[in-house]
Amino acid sequence: MSSTKPLPPGSVIGILGGGQLGRMLALAAARLGLKSHIYCPDAASPAFDVSAAHICAPYEDEAALAEFASSVDVVTYEFENVPDVTADLLSARVPVHPDPKILAITQDRATEKEYLEAIGLEVARWAKISTGEDLERAVDRIGLPAILKTRRFGYDGKGQTGISSGDDLASAWDAIGNAPAVLEARVPLACEVSVIVARSGTGEIRAFDITENVHVDHILKTSTVPASIPGRLQEQALRMGQSIAEALRYVGVMGVELFVTGEGGDQQLLVNEIAPRVHNSGHWTQDACAVCQFEQHIRAVAGWPLGNPARHSDVVMTNLIGDEAGTWRDIATGAGACLHLYGKSETRAGRKMGHVNRLLPRK
Amino acid sequence: MSSTKPLPPGSVIGILGGGQLGRMLALAAARLGLKSHIYCPDAASPAFDVSAAHICAPYEDEAALAEFASSVDVVTYEFENVPDVTADLLSARVPVHPDPKILAITQDRATEKEYLEAIGLEVARWAKISTGEDLERAVDRIGLPAILKTRRFGYDGKGQTGISSGDDLASAWDAIGNAPAVLEARVPLACEVSVIVARSGTGEIRAFDITENVHVDHILKTSTVPASIPGRLQEQALRMGQSIAEALRYVGVMGVELFVTGEGGDQQLLVNEIAPRVHNSGHWTQDACAVCQFEQHIRAVAGWPLGNPARHSDVVMTNLIGDEAGTWRDIATGAGACLHLYGKSETRAGRKMGHVNRLLPRK
Repeated sequence: MSSTKPLPPGSVIGILGGGQLGRMLALAAARLGLKSHIYCPDAASPAFDVSAAHICAPYEDEAALAEFASSVDVVTYEFENVPDVTADLLSARVPVHPDPKILAITQDRATEKEYLEAIGLEVARWAKISTGEDLERAVDRIGLPAILKTRRFGYDGKGQTGISSGDDLASAWDAIGNAPAVLEARVPLACEVSVIVARSGTGEIRAFDITENVHVDHILKTSTVPASIPGRLQEQALRMGQSIAEALRYVGVMGVELFVTGEGGDQQLLVNEIAPRVHNSGHWTQDACAVCQFEQHIRAVAGWPLGNPARHSDVVMTNLIGDEAGTWRDIATGAGACLHLYGKSETRAGRKMGHVNRLLPRK
Repeated sequence: MSSTKPLPPGSVIGILGGGQLGRMLALAAARLGLKSHIYCPDAASPAFDVSAAHICAPYEDEAALAEFASSVDVVTYEFENVPDVTADLLSARVPVHPDPKILAITQDRATEKEYLEAIGLEVARWAKISTGEDLERAVDRIGLPAILKTRRFGYDGKGQTGISSGDDLASAWDAIGNAPAVLEARVPLACEVSVIVARSGTGEIRAFDITENVHVDHILKTSTVPASIPGRLQEQALRMGQSIAEALRYVGVMGVELFVTGEGGDQQLLVNEIAPRVHNSGHWTQDACAVCQFEQHIRAVAGWPLGNPARHSDVVMTNLIGDEAGTWRDIATGAGACLHLYGKSETRAGRKMGHVNRLLPRK
């Protein structure tokens, strides 16, 4: 189903997934006078605590999904691995944004790369891997070092392994469970950046400023705005994000991760991956822009006009992972520090527990 | 009961009152990883939609209050007219901030003015009115024009009436129901300003920048920061707010409304009134500061360190009253416009439905 006019204040946004992204979407919806209804199988979902209603049931529970669909005006999601059956059941009853068809592209690294190449964007050299022989041939063609990644269900470094010269290929293939995979060339990185772009149902497209990201142990550690790359590359990155949103006829906010390779005037951008949802590297927008990525996403899926994505401050976002959130007291006293904690009851190593946006006057 | 150490993330903030102030307190608590539990007799309370739990019961319901007290770590409130019995029942069981004793001062205009004068602050000439004869004597002493205000339960111009030369005093006294009252001289206003000040349980005091306020029909229409008054008066206003918070040994955020009277170098400040809670004239802090008044209040009542109140942007806050909130679509498209709607199901004339903070680069 598709919607044609904006949902008025008081309408109900259905959100699949009750983690921190669902929680921050719900908080943004509340600012706009919209209600949130969360659907998540995890009883300890932090988004439940800030929403008007929630359903705790498996994603395949048809009766629960029907109840959910009947109580919301639109459905969106905080994660890309929404099962097909869930998306199909819901979209037969209620508008779902972004279109679940886009999930079929982004859930599979091979399909995603093929799509990106088809619309004229560059990615790192890669090959599809279905067998051990595929892997041997791919290594010959692409060279080493390279990264072997499962086609589906990878995040934060899960489902991937690096391969260097001399490594045993069969062991690497075993390390990711012999699952269908892609082999990607490990490109010499100058840095990593991302673009957070929104598209509305009427085709309006707005992008936030380019973010420079640092990952530690495959998990995002900091996002810094402005990014240190030249203006030419920033503009190119914005255009790449916009062209993907346009090609997909996307409705909502998406994150596009980019590699910056090469040096000086030879630097170029390669698309790493697309996240069809609000993105960790866009958390800085909460405090450095009048309208943040969460509000922008809610506006898009509710059929509202998009907000102006200009930033009023420079900013460094730092993720608080595992025990790091225990330092909240010190963080809270910093000048310009905007602390965000996710209300997760259990602290685990590697778990995203919160983040802090540190504002600086715009240079 | 008093609390000695900061409540850790995951703790539960109990909030008396489920209107927009309670709602925005709950949203601020959520950002810090704290849960909110709302207590309000109104089943259509907009704060219920963004809180982990709520109780809908009268303020005098002892069983419900006991249940509430047992499920929260601290209690605060969004309004100053908390009944004594409610405050007493709760404070016997759980820390309540600000101290309910402060309510006894601010709930009564006469007691409040006596308190302000006792700590050395100036207010407009005034007199206590208990009888028609009191009113006649007071008019002789204070002069006209003047304003007759009930001592208790007034807000947004309710419970007050102006008296000009030639008006019938008995009619004015009837207009406010012959209730115990104060007569205040109507001072020649250059403008109205306010200071939003926070004090923590450890005595730390932080004030936001002085706000210039415009009222229409006794309801706040706009708050502008920076205020147009000279630096000397801004500093004096900050000191007045700080001295009140200090004298009251206040814990939380309070709003102090001030009159600016006179002209040029003779301008001076008089205290209009104290609001022992977050205040409409502090809504601009949500988008122009790293830490807003709602978060600052939550930090204070939870025993956290206070945040830095510096503003990063200039701002004009405009209340959306009654039908004005119907223009949300146009408001949402303005550059620098941060829209806040309160999720109230019913629009009524004079009802605060939302506000918009319009950010400008800091001059």
